[in-house]
Amino acid sequence: MKSMKKLNTTTISGMQELLPASQATFNQLKRGISSVFYRHGYQNIETPTIDRTEILLAKAGGDTEKQIYKVIKTAESADSADQALRFDHTVPLARYVVEHENDLAFPFKVSQIGRNFRGERAQKGRFREFYQCDIDIIGRESLPLAYDADIIATLAEALSVFQLPAIRIRLSNRQLLSGLLAELNLNHISADIFNIVDHAEKVPPATTKQRLLDLNISEDHIATLHDFMQINGPDTIERLRALQISNAIFQQGINALEQVFTSLKNQNVSVVPDMLIVRGLDYYTGTVFETFVPGYENLGSICSGGRYDQLASHYTDQHFPGVGGSIGLTRLYAVLSEAGLLSDSTEPPITIAIVPISASEIPYANQVAAELREQNPNYAIDVILTDKKLGAKLSHAVKIAKFGVIIGESEVKTGNLQIKNFATGQTSSL
Amino acid sequence: MKSMKKLNTTTISGMQELLPASQATFNQLKRGISSVFYRHGYQNIETPTIDRTEILLAKAGGDTEKQIYKVIKTAESADSADQALRFDHTVPLARYVVEHENDLAFPFKVSQIGRNFRGERAQKGRFREFYQCDIDIIGRESLPLAYDADIIATLAEALSVFQLPAIRIRLSNRQLLSGLLAELNLNHISADIFNIVDHAEKVPPATTKQRLLDLNISEDHIATLHDFMQINGPDTIERLRALQISNAIFQQGINALEQVFTSLKNQNVSVVPDMLIVRGLDYYTGTVFETFVPGYENLGSICSGGRYDQLASHYTDQHFPGVGGSIGLTRLYAVLSEAGLLSDSTEPPITIAIVPISASEIPYANQVAAELREQNPNYAIDVILTDKKLGAKLSHAVKIAKFGVIIGESEVKTGNLQIKNFATGQTSSL
Repeated sequence: MKSMKKLNTTTISGMQELLPASQATFNQLKRGISSVFYRHGYQNIETPTIDRTEILLAKAGGDTEKQIYKVIKTAESADSADQALRFDHTVPLARYVVEHENDLAFPFKVSQIGRNFRGERAQKGRFREFYQCDIDIIGRESLPLAYDADIIATLAEALSVFQLPAIRIRLSNRQLLSGLLAELNLNHISADIFNIVDHAEKVPPATTKQRLLDLNISEDHIATLHDFMQINGPDTIERLRALQISNAIFQQGINALEQVFTSLKNQNVSVVPDMLIVRGLDYYTGTVFETFVPGYENLGSICSGGRYDQLASHYTDQHFPGVGGSIGLTRLYAVLSEAGLLSDSTEPPITIAIVPISASEIPYANQVAAELREQNPNYAIDVILTDKKLGAKLSHAVKIAKFGVIIGESEVKTGNLQIKNFATGQTSSL
Repeated sequence: MKSMKKLNTTTISGMQELLPASQATFNQLKRGISSVFYRHGYQNIETPTIDRTEILLAKAGGDTEKQIYKVIKTAESADSADQALRFDHTVPLARYVVEHENDLAFPFKVSQIGRNFRGERAQKGRFREFYQCDIDIIGRESLPLAYDADIIATLAEALSVFQLPAIRIRLSNRQLLSGLLAELNLNHISADIFNIVDHAEKVPPATTKQRLLDLNISEDHIATLHDFMQINGPDTIERLRALQISNAIFQQGINALEQVFTSLKNQNVSVVPDMLIVRGLDYYTGTVFETFVPGYENLGSICSGGRYDQLASHYTDQHFPGVGGSIGLTRLYAVLSEAGLLSDSTEPPITIAIVPISASEIPYANQVAAELREQNPNYAIDVILTDKKLGAKLSHAVKIAKFGVIIGESEVKTGNLQIKNFATGQTSSL
């Protein structure tokens, strides 16, 4: 029978909606990430999905403001037009820390796993509603660089749940480019230059050069910036020192990069220093990192973050330096599935289906199910309660379950139960 | 130092935001409920938070329409004004089933645990954003009443995670009042009468009577309705039969109630038939139930649901009868905490804090932490990386962790580690 739809039942563009088998895969990844965060000492919190627009946009502005979803209560639109959906976990976290500072122990190691919202133009791999798995560490007054390494080491371990062939974590520190621009007296256009460097890999080299020329930067300085952008790999620290830039911020950047790099090396976390990594969001103030899958660089960064020493400054005069990072789970799940790097289990979801032959065996079937659940807390046990013929019940059982137990009059009488492995056809006593 | 806030950092009224220890309790309850759902054969799905307004309001209307949160993208308000936040899990599930019917096995036993949104007037125990933990079973063409019992038995087991002193599940079937009203020729005002019965416990008896009088119902019929509303307890079926109402819908209601009641009794799930239970939402068509905590009836129903045989009919001409129920976790957590029926763990969140005395012991401390995590997958292990004095590091460790391991020069040299139980002061070799 062909069904007739009365309304459009597809999801809104940019929303991910999974079938149960895919949802099970997704949930397993989410649990795996959550477990790594827990084991590394990050405490979980959740902030509301809806927050005050002035809080969400205190720092952001620009693109974020255009992408934010405002929410309006139908009944009282005037009162609520100043509310919006959070677009990341970092901004609400800054508010959380300011609000609850007296109830938290600092450094506060915190994880957040939940849905965020951006009204971006829908395109492949871009979602308007998406899970992010964040960890952050917030200090009181100060926060040593050792915590930057803690964030990256923990995220690297969390990414192991995806069983990727390899990952490549690219690391830098924004103080390097900031210091260089100060040295070159280009401070006044630093936001533009950060943006050009951030996009340099996505456009031909000539375009990057033209963009710099458009800013009226001299050929000499463009050459210096070009050389800087080429620096990456294990000898990065030496090459940065060889530039002989005396600016103090630049020198701090070298030392910070070296410290984080060395700490990660000591923890057997492989990272590659790379001056092309600057991160678009301008709340980052130091360490920045992005993560790629070698051979699948077109997927974009699958995990990124950095140091933000000023974020809470829009809400309070207290100083709460922070560092954090995020795995974009919804996007990552989608792109890895499509790239064939992830696949759903082909096993049926239910462990054992109990199949009463007729309604009179349902009470005993329920009793057997309850006992099996008690004995095996990790089993999913279902009782097929349809009033169909045995054949129809069995074909449903085979579709949803790995094992089956048929219960008829004689099973109720004797209590002798046979369990069948649907995949192999083998039967044994239960 | 007194801190100065620059913006209001409280949450919006009606939002729940928990400190980490409370969030841990909340998460544990959520995981416990999720596990019961899984073990009873319910597959998990998630629908988008944002859906088309026409889908969300296809059936609802009335109060729901007033409470719904619309969402608007700042950049393109015209295109997106027809989108809103889901207010429950049942309506998006109906859409999901219609959209994916060819990829699902029916009866489809499904769980949903997530946040829903209602712009209700904020009041104690009412949240605008709240977690609901739902299970539903959707049939294709038909769905036997045995599944109604499966929903209630599973929810009763899920509620055991709260370790309540007792719970009281009150059960009825809307066909009873529907059939009675048909018998009394009061069909035309049945929505009003359902509403009056639904509120009968919250107002004095005289008010209920007056409301019925206001509908121009005769004293005779009011007496009949009054007698009907008094029926509850183990002899409900006999008392309903004694009313000798021949209406076929009423008789179906008796048989359905008896079957669900008996099935639950067979599964040792204690329920009380009670004619005052009719549920406000008019998508219910048969079985209805609500759950109370004896002695804490003022908390309201903590878990409720019922049979809805027509919900998907607004989206398709196919027939998908369903039954389901929901635990309102956010509200339940709040009211049980306040009633003293739930309390957070007083144990610190971290299992073991590793405390390197100076920066030079950090690499070894990280190594010890990694080994401990490897050996004990359920431990939360933190390394205190602050650059403070040992005393300050230790007082932070005591605040956040159950056990501590101090690592100085000699520990690095010898590898002999002592672990201290902060609660007892006892120390032993690691």
